[in-house]
Amino acid sequence: MSAAAALDRSDPEGAIAAAAARCSNWDRWGPDDVKGTLNLITDEHRRRAAALVRRGATFSLAQPFDMDGPQRGWRRRTNPVHTMLDTGTEAELGIQGFPHGLGGADDVIAMPLQCSTQWDGLGHIFDHGRAWNGRPAGQVVTSAGDGVTGIETVAADLVGRAVLLDVGRALGVDVAGQGGELPDGFAITPEHLDATVEAQGPTSSVGPGDILVVRTGQYGRTLREGWGEYAGGPAPGLSFTTADWLHEHDVAAVATDTWGFEVRPNEFDVAFQPLHQVVIPNMGLFVGEMWDLEELAADCAADRRYEFLLVAAPLPVTGAVGAPLNPVALK
Amino acid sequence: MSAAAALDRSDPEGAIAAAAARCSNWDRWGPDDVKGTLNLITDEHRRRAAALVRRGATFSLAQPFDMDGPQRGWRRRTNPVHTMLDTGTEAELGIQGFPHGLGGADDVIAMPLQCSTQWDGLGHIFDHGRAWNGRPAGQVVTSAGDGVTGIETVAADLVGRAVLLDVGRALGVDVAGQGGELPDGFAITPEHLDATVEAQGPTSSVGPGDILVVRTGQYGRTLREGWGEYAGGPAPGLSFTTADWLHEHDVAAVATDTWGFEVRPNEFDVAFQPLHQVVIPNMGLFVGEMWDLEELAADCAADRRYEFLLVAAPLPVTGAVGAPLNPVALK
Amino acid sequence: MSAAAALDRSDPEGAIAAAAARCSNWDRWGPDDVKGTLNLITDEHRRRAAALVRRGATFSLAQPFDMDGPQRGWRRRTNPVHTMLDTGTEAELGIQGFPHGLGGADDVIAMPLQCSTQWDGLGHIFDHGRAWNGRPAGQVVTSAGDGVTGIETVAADLVGRAVLLDVGRALGVDVAGQGGELPDGFAITPEHLDATVEAQGPTSSVGPGDILVVRTGQYGRTLREGWGEYAGGPAPGLSFTTADWLHEHDVAAVATDTWGFEVRPNEFDVAFQPLHQVVIPNMGLFVGEMWDLEELAADCAADRRYEFLLVAAPLPVTGAVGAPLNPVALK
Amino acid sequence: MSAAAALDRSDPEGAIAAAAARCSNWDRWGPDDVKGTLNLITDEHRRRAAALVRRGATFSLAQPFDMDGPQRGWRRRTNPVHTMLDTGTEAELGIQGFPHGLGGADDVIAMPLQCSTQWDGLGHIFDHGRAWNGRPAGQVVTSAGDGVTGIETVAADLVGRAVLLDVGRALGVDVAGQGGELPDGFAITPEHLDATVEAQGPTSSVGPGDILVVRTGQYGRTLREGWGEYAGGPAPGLSFTTADWLHEHDVAAVATDTWGFEVRPNEFDVAFQPLHQVVIPNMGLFVGEMWDLEELAADCAADRRYEFLLVAAPLPVTGAVGAPLNPVALK
Repeated sequence: MSAAAALDRSDPEGAIAAAAARCSNWDRWGPDDVKGTLNLITDEHRRRAAALVRRGATFSLAQPFDMDGPQRGWRRRTNPVHTMLDTGTEAELGIQGFPHGLGGADDVIAMPLQCSTQWDGLGHIFDHGRAWNGRPAGQVVTSAGDGVTGIETVAADLVGRAVLLDVGRALGVDVAGQGGELPDGFAITPEHLDATVEAQGPTSSVGPGDILVVRTGQYGRTLREGWGEYAGGPAPGLSFTTADWLHEHDVAAVATDTWGFEVRPNEFDVAFQPLHQVVIPNMGLFVGEMWDLEELAADCAADRRYEFLLVAAPLPVTGAVGAPLNPVALK
Repeated sequence: MSAAAALDRSDPEGAIAAAAARCSNWDRWGPDDVKGTLNLITDEHRRRAAALVRRGATFSLAQPFDMDGPQRGWRRRTNPVHTMLDTGTEAELGIQGFPHGLGGADDVIAMPLQCSTQWDGLGHIFDHGRAWNGRPAGQVVTSAGDGVTGIETVAADLVGRAVLLDVGRALGVDVAGQGGELPDGFAITPEHLDATVEAQGPTSSVGPGDILVVRTGQYGRTLREGWGEYAGGPAPGLSFTTADWLHEHDVAAVATDTWGFEVRPNEFDVAFQPLHQVVIPNMGLFVGEMWDLEELAADCAADRRYEFLLVAAPLPVTGAVGAPLNPVALK
Repeated sequence: MSAAAALDRSDPEGAIAAAAARCSNWDRWGPDDVKGTLNLITDEHRRRAAALVRRGATFSLAQPFDMDGPQRGWRRRTNPVHTMLDTGTEAELGIQGFPHGLGGADDVIAMPLQCSTQWDGLGHIFDHGRAWNGRPAGQVVTSAGDGVTGIETVAADLVGRAVLLDVGRALGVDVAGQGGELPDGFAITPEHLDATVEAQGPTSSVGPGDILVVRTGQYGRTLREGWGEYAGGPAPGLSFTTADWLHEHDVAAVATDTWGFEVRPNEFDVAFQPLHQVVIPNMGLFVGEMWDLEELAADCAADRRYEFLLVAAPLPVTGAVGAPLNPVALK
Repeated sequence: MSAAAALDRSDPEGAIAAAAARCSNWDRWGPDDVKGTLNLITDEHRRRAAALVRRGATFSLAQPFDMDGPQRGWRRRTNPVHTMLDTGTEAELGIQGFPHGLGGADDVIAMPLQCSTQWDGLGHIFDHGRAWNGRPAGQVVTSAGDGVTGIETVAADLVGRAVLLDVGRALGVDVAGQGGELPDGFAITPEHLDATVEAQGPTSSVGPGDILVVRTGQYGRTLREGWGEYAGGPAPGLSFTTADWLHEHDVAAVATDTWGFEVRPNEFDVAFQPLHQVVIPNMGLFVGEMWDLEELAADCAADRRYEFLLVAAPLPVTGAVGAPLNPVALK
C-alpha cells in the first residue's frame, strides 16, 4: 500500500495528531532544547561535508529580495521595500557635505522576514497551542518576538552536508529545456523521494544530520512565466505522508524552491499546511522556503554529484520566528 | 621611516588622491567589471580554503540585529525594528482562525542595511563623484538603488580562505581576561599588521584572494561596557597608511569588529573615512564592519590556527549598496 | 468649440508647455514662495468659511489606512503595514512587566506617504527639471527629502471654504442607489464643472481661495466591487483642459475621490499625468487624491448645501513631497 | 486639604483602583460603546465651537515628524524614518523615464504611531487586563491591531471647542522670554488648573464636551535646549489627583505639550503612568501628547482668548491604538 493511499482524508485533525505523535522529538534533546533537529549536525558531520568540496564552485541559493517579488499581501506579507538614504546622484553633484571629495550612499529596507528565501524557525508554527518541545506557544512567542527559540539561537548551526533531490528533473517534465518540473498540486511522496535518490545515484543518499534540499522546478517556471500565484497558490511540494520519511531519515533540515515546502492545495479537504504542523513544533525541523535551486540543479545534473557543503546561516534577527538568508552551496 | 610618519597630514585631499592613484584597480578586470577585488578569489582558492576545515567547528561572526544596537540616528541609521504580525500568544488562545489546531507566528523588520554586521558594497562610497571602475556615481546609484554594482551581483562570491589578524590580542592590553584590545584612536599600521602575522605564526600569512579579518577588541569591550559611541565615535582601526598594504597583498576583502573599519578620529585634521575613499571606489575592495570576532578569536588563540573557510554571503537585496549578513567561519 | 475639442492630441509636449505657460504662477508670490496657491486662502476667507458651519456635523474624508488598500507595488508603493509592539493579549496575561496592573499596547507603521488619502505637495511633480516657482528640481528634492517646499511648510494652511462638485451625481449614472458615478475614462471638462455648479445651485459657486472637491463616484464603486485597478488604472477624472478653469477660478487646492485626480487613460496618446505637470510645478496647486467623499456627498445632496469648512491638515513629515491626512468637513 | 495631600503614596494599587472606581464611565454609553468621552461632544457643541472663530487664524499644533525627534528606543519607539522613492535630482537629470518632461518624487515613512504628536486611543492602556468599557484586553488588541476601539472609529469625532490652560505661563517662570514654563516634576493639581482658569479669565471655563489643552512649557524649553530626556524622562504634567477634576468637568479629551501628559517621575514611589491607567481604560478619555502649543499660547496670551475650534482628526490607521495627527486650532 502506498503512503499516499495511507492518508486518511476523512479525519485531518486525527491524521495530524497521529503523525505528530509518531514523529515527535519532544524531550529527545532535553527539556531546554532550542535547536530541534539541528542537534543532528555534529562537527564531525560538518568536517566530512567540507571534504565534499572538490572544485571550489559556489552557488547562491537565494532568490532576489526586491519589490518584484511574489508577495500579494496575505497576512500583511509584502515584498521588500528598499529605499535609499543617500545616492550617487547627490554625490556626483557634490551636495553631500563630506570633505575632500568623499561621497556615499546608504540604504534601508522594510520587509517581512519570510518574504523571500528564508528559514522557518521553530517559533513559526504551533500545534494546538504548543511550540517546539511542548512549550506553551504564548510563553515562547509574544509581541516582543520569540524569546526562547529565536533564530539567533541557531546562528552558527545551519551548516552541513546537503543533498539535492531534484524531483522535478527525475520525475517531472522538461517543459522548456530548463530541467524538469512538477505540476502544481503534485504531492511528492516517500516513494518519489526514494525514486529520486535511486535515479540520481550514490551521492544522493540521505542520512542523519543531512540537510535535504528538494527541487520541484516551480521556481524555474516563475522565471519564465511570472510569479502568478507562487505565494500561497497551488504548487508541487512534499506530501503530508513524508513526515515519517523525514523523521526516519533524521534529516536536520529541509528546503524547497516553493513558497510553502508542502504540496498545495493541501491534501486534506480542509487544512492549512498540515505538514508544517507536524514537522516544526513536533519534530523540531527547520524548513527552508523560496530557495533558488536552478543553477545548482543544472550543475548537479551535469556532474552527477548531488551532495555538497551547504552554509545556510540565517540573518540573526533577535527573536525572529523566521529569517531571510543567502544560502551558499559549495561543490 | 614608519608608514605613520609617511602620512602627510597637511594635505588630506592630495594624500587621498595619491593613495587612490597608487592603489587603483580601475580597468584591471575590464571596463564592465562589478566585482572588484572579489575577482581575486578563484574556485581553486576556495577549494583550498575548504580543505582548511579540520574539526567542522562553526562560528557565527554576526552581531545581533535588534533594538539594543549601537545606532543613534546618524544619517537616519536606526537600530532594527522587529515586530510581529502574529504571535504564539494568539495561537495559544486559539484566535487565529486556522483549522485543526494550527497556529503561526510571522514577523517584519525595518532597518538600515548597514545597521549591524554588514558588507559595504562597491556602491557605498564615491571619490569625487566617481564610483568603482571610474563610473559616474549618479549613473550607478540613484533612488532606485545601485543598478550596476548592487550587492546581488556578488551573492555567491564572498566565500574563501580568511585570515584573522587579532591585533587586539597581539599588540593590545588584556583588560578583562577576554583577550587583548586596542584603545580608541589606535591606528593599525602596516607594521602592526606584519607584526601580528609574525606573532601568530605561519597560518596567518596573507596573500592574493584572501579575506582579511582584523580584530581590534573594541566590540568585546562594548559587550562589557555597553555601546557608548561605538557607532561613529572614537575607535581603533586601520590606518590610512594600510591602503598600500591591502593593495600589495591583493586581499579580496577586509572586515573588522568596529563600526567603520578605519581608525577614528580619522588621521587627517579634517577628514571623513579617507581610507574608505581610497579602497572602495578606487581599489574595488569589499569592506566588512561590525563583525563579532570574539568567539572565533578565542578559538584561534587556543589552537594557534588563524586561517579558516569563511562563508560571508550578503543578503542579496537587489540594488543594495551594503548588506547585512551572518558570516560563518568553519575551522 | 468645446474645451475637449481644443485639446491638440498630436503634440502633447507642446500642449503641456502651452498650458503651463498660460497657467503659471511663478513669481506671483515672490521668488521665495513655498506655498503656491495656498497664498489665496486668507484669514478673512477662513473666518467666513467657519461661519458656514450650521449644524456642527463632521465628516471624515479619509479612506482607511491598512493592508486592504489598492496599492499593487507600482514605484514601490505598498499598502500600509501596521504592526503591534505590544498587545492587549499580553496585557491580559500580565506578562508586560508594568506595576499595579497597568497594561499597554503600542504600534508601528511603514507606508508610502501617498498610499491612501493624501495631499500631493509642491515637491511631488516637476516639469522639465523644474519644481514650483522655477527652482531646479535637484535643489529642492534630494534623498534627504524636500528641503524647500516640504509639506511641513503648509502645516497650518490647508483650512478654508471648500465646495463639493459632485459630478458623479450631477452627470453620472446611479448604478446602485449610492449616488451617481462616472465611468472610467470619463474626462471632466470645464463645461462639466460649470454644469455641476449650476445643477447644485448657489452654494456651489467656486471662487478665489476655495478648495475644490470633486466627486466622481469611483471610490464608491470600489466599496461595492473591490479595488480592481483603482491605483493607476482607468478612472474618471479632470480633463487636461481644466487647467485653465482651475487657474481662472484661482482655487487654492483641488481634491478628488480617485487615485490620480486626472482622467485615466490620460488624454494624449503618450502621456503620464500631464495635468499634474501643469498644475503642481507651474500653477503651484495642491492636489488631494484618494479622498472618501461618499458620506459627505450624500449629506450635501440631502440638504442641498455643497459648501463647508474643510480642515485638511497634512501630517507634517519634514521634507515630505506628499502627506497622508484625515480631512474633516464641518457643516 | 490640598489634592496633593490627598494622595496616598503608600498604596498605589489601591489608590489607582479607588480613582478608577470613582471616575469610571463603563456602560455610561452602553455596552457596545467605542468612543468613550467623545460621546460628550455633540453637533450643537461643535456648532458653537465653530462660532468661536473670529479672525480665521490657524495654528498647527503638531511637532515635526522626523529623525531629529526625541525617541531613544524605549519599547522599540524610534523617530520617524522618512526616505525617498524618487527625487528631484533624478528628475532634473531626466533619468526617470516619464514622457514629455514629467518628473516626480515619492516618499515612504516608517514610524511608531506614537513617535510624535499623537492621540492615545482607547486601546492604548489597560487596567488589570481590562480595556475601555470593561472588555478583556486580549479580545480588543491582538497582533492584528485593535479590532474594537481602533482609532478609525473616531475619525470624525475629535473636533470641538477646546480651551488652552497655559499653566506654564500662569504659574511658571518665564526663563527665556518665551512664556512661562514649569519645572520637571511639577505636578499640576486641580488647584493649579482652577487657578489658571481664573488667571486667564472667562474664555477659559471648562465644561462638558470640551477638549482640554494644557501647556506646561516643557516643549518650548526643548526648542531652546534640545530634547534631553523629553521622551520618558522627568517632566511637568498633570497630577494623579486631577483624575476626578477631569471626570467632574466631563472633558472630552485632554492634550499636553509633554511626552506623557502626566507628571514624571510619577507620584507614587513605584508606578508607571498611573493617571493613564485611570483615565484611558476606566474613564474612556482620549489623551493627546507631544503637542506644540508655543505659537498658539503666545497668541492666546496676546488676545486673552483661550477658547477656539480644535480640529484634531487622527490619521485613521485601521486598528491603531494611537495615531499621529496634525491638530489645527482656529481662532
